[in-house]
Amino acid sequence: MARLRFTVEQRFADLDLLGHVNNVAYVTYLQEVRLKLLSRLLGERLLTMNHVVVRNEIDYLLPLSLRPEPLPVDTWIERIGRSSYVIGCEVIDPEGRVAAKATTVLVHLGSDGSAAPIPDDVRALLAKALEEPDA
Amino acid sequence: MARLRFTVEQRFADLDLLGHVNNVAYVTYLQEVRLKLLSRLLGERLLTMNHVVVRNEIDYLLPLSLRPEPLPVDTWIERIGRSSYVIGCEVIDPEGRVAAKATTVLVHLGSDGSAAPIPDDVRALLAKALEEPDA
Amino acid sequence: MARLRFTVEQRFADLDLLGHVNNVAYVTYLQEVRLKLLSRLLGERLLTMNHVVVRNEIDYLLPLSLRPEPLPVDTWIERIGRSSYVIGCEVIDPEGRVAAKATTVLVHLGSDGSAAPIPDDVRALLAKALEEPDA
Amino acid sequence: MARLRFTVEQRFADLDLLGHVNNVAYVTYLQEVRLKLLSRLLGERLLTMNHVVVRNEIDYLLPLSLRPEPLPVDTWIERIGRSSYVIGCEVIDPEGRVAAKATTVLVHLGSDGSAAPIPDDVRALLAKALEEPDA
Repeated sequence: MARLRFTVEQRFADLDLLGHVNNVAYVTYLQEVRLKLLSRLLGERLLTMNHVVVRNEIDYLLPLSLRPEPLPVDTWIERIGRSSYVIGCEVIDPEGRVAAKATTVLVHLGSDGSAAPIPDDVRALLAKALEEPDA
Repeated sequence: MARLRFTVEQRFADLDLLGHVNNVAYVTYLQEVRLKLLSRLLGERLLTMNHVVVRNEIDYLLPLSLRPEPLPVDTWIERIGRSSYVIGCEVIDPEGRVAAKATTVLVHLGSDGSAAPIPDDVRALLAKALEEPDA
Repeated sequence: MARLRFTVEQRFADLDLLGHVNNVAYVTYLQEVRLKLLSRLLGERLLTMNHVVVRNEIDYLLPLSLRPEPLPVDTWIERIGRSSYVIGCEVIDPEGRVAAKATTVLVHLGSDGSAAPIPDDVRALLAKALEEPDA
Repeated sequence: MARLRFTVEQRFADLDLLGHVNNVAYVTYLQEVRLKLLSRLLGERLLTMNHVVVRNEIDYLLPLSLRPEPLPVDTWIERIGRSSYVIGCEVIDPEGRVAAKATTVLVHLGSDGSAAPIPDDVRALLAKALEEPDA
């Protein structure tokens, strides 16, 4: 799909002792950007969905420091399954290089709290994004 | 290697809106337990090492809620490479089930900040742990 | 009232760049200890109450570093008003000195979400704690 | 002094179980805005200063929820002492009301780590800000 670029505002607390963004903070960045992506794609429908993260996978490629400028993160829908879907992310450093790559798998939960097929309207919205050509 | 069991004290802030431990908080748990493991295996030597997390991989299997009892997390050295090593973790829920599985890859950094062979004394300590039979 | 001593497990992320516990982390410690105190005094009743923090006041007296041992925090009910009550806290460093002093004011909310008199059963439990002599 | 308005980007993790911004997250907001203020007033000089927060005082006036728009926070230098200075803050909600008021006291530390007079160049920059008329 077309990648979407969002940004995250870094915080002082994202740094660890060594002055680098701590590995846990990147996962917070992924969460913020995922919510921005899903909010963009699904709108109000996001609020009535019940889905959970079942897998996170992150490769840390370059150290990040704290910058006042918003940190760009590219994100996209990578794959849509029956009851799960996959979001890809790349955190971009100030020189435009990929500082981290990540994929997150989410599962849709039915009313009984177990994995259930993604509802058709949500699937349509995600699929539309998946098929959109890169700008 | 023999697994070691450590515990993490949960915090109210680990919960998200839905009353479950948020996916980011698990990564904090991994970090706490990793420091406990490495502190146990390497002692003071931990303080003079320079290593960074280059990969995190987490499967969330069961939701966790907030409990006053310390949360058990099993951890072990899974593999030792030339300049990197891998730590495995399983977060255990109050019923004794594996609530999450994770692996973290760390890379040793030389004085120039790039990947460098794990120093012999550190390698010996990690290898000793790796070879220890399960209790 | 008799002070109660609880402990908080510190986390690596509580540290800032300078290797000291960041001022925000202390407020997390207060929250953890407040929940332990209220859970001890009110039991299950805590879960059906609706109260919010309306004021936090903290004096940072000594820097704290990261220790593997649980951090002791003394806490007590300081005052009970009509719809609010005050909790006192002292964070204790490894040498037994007071590293920080804090008071937190909480307000009970009625069903309409505005300040309301503390229910009699809760007031009785808080008052009992307030009147208990120091051990 | 003239108040300066900065903004903070909220995060999902700032919310607690009840869907409101948790009281601890406000203290994070204060920290972010304080760094923005000091960075604006002191520039590079901020990096070579050694000061610590010795007091935080926050009144929570209105609940905040999570909004995608940046959260405005007004801030100003409130008072300059010999070795300490005071920063005031007001967190503004989407309706333009003051959702929280806070003051933070910082102390300048000398090379031995104890309170020391604020260096003249820093004092001059802070004083200039303090005296600036409101826009």
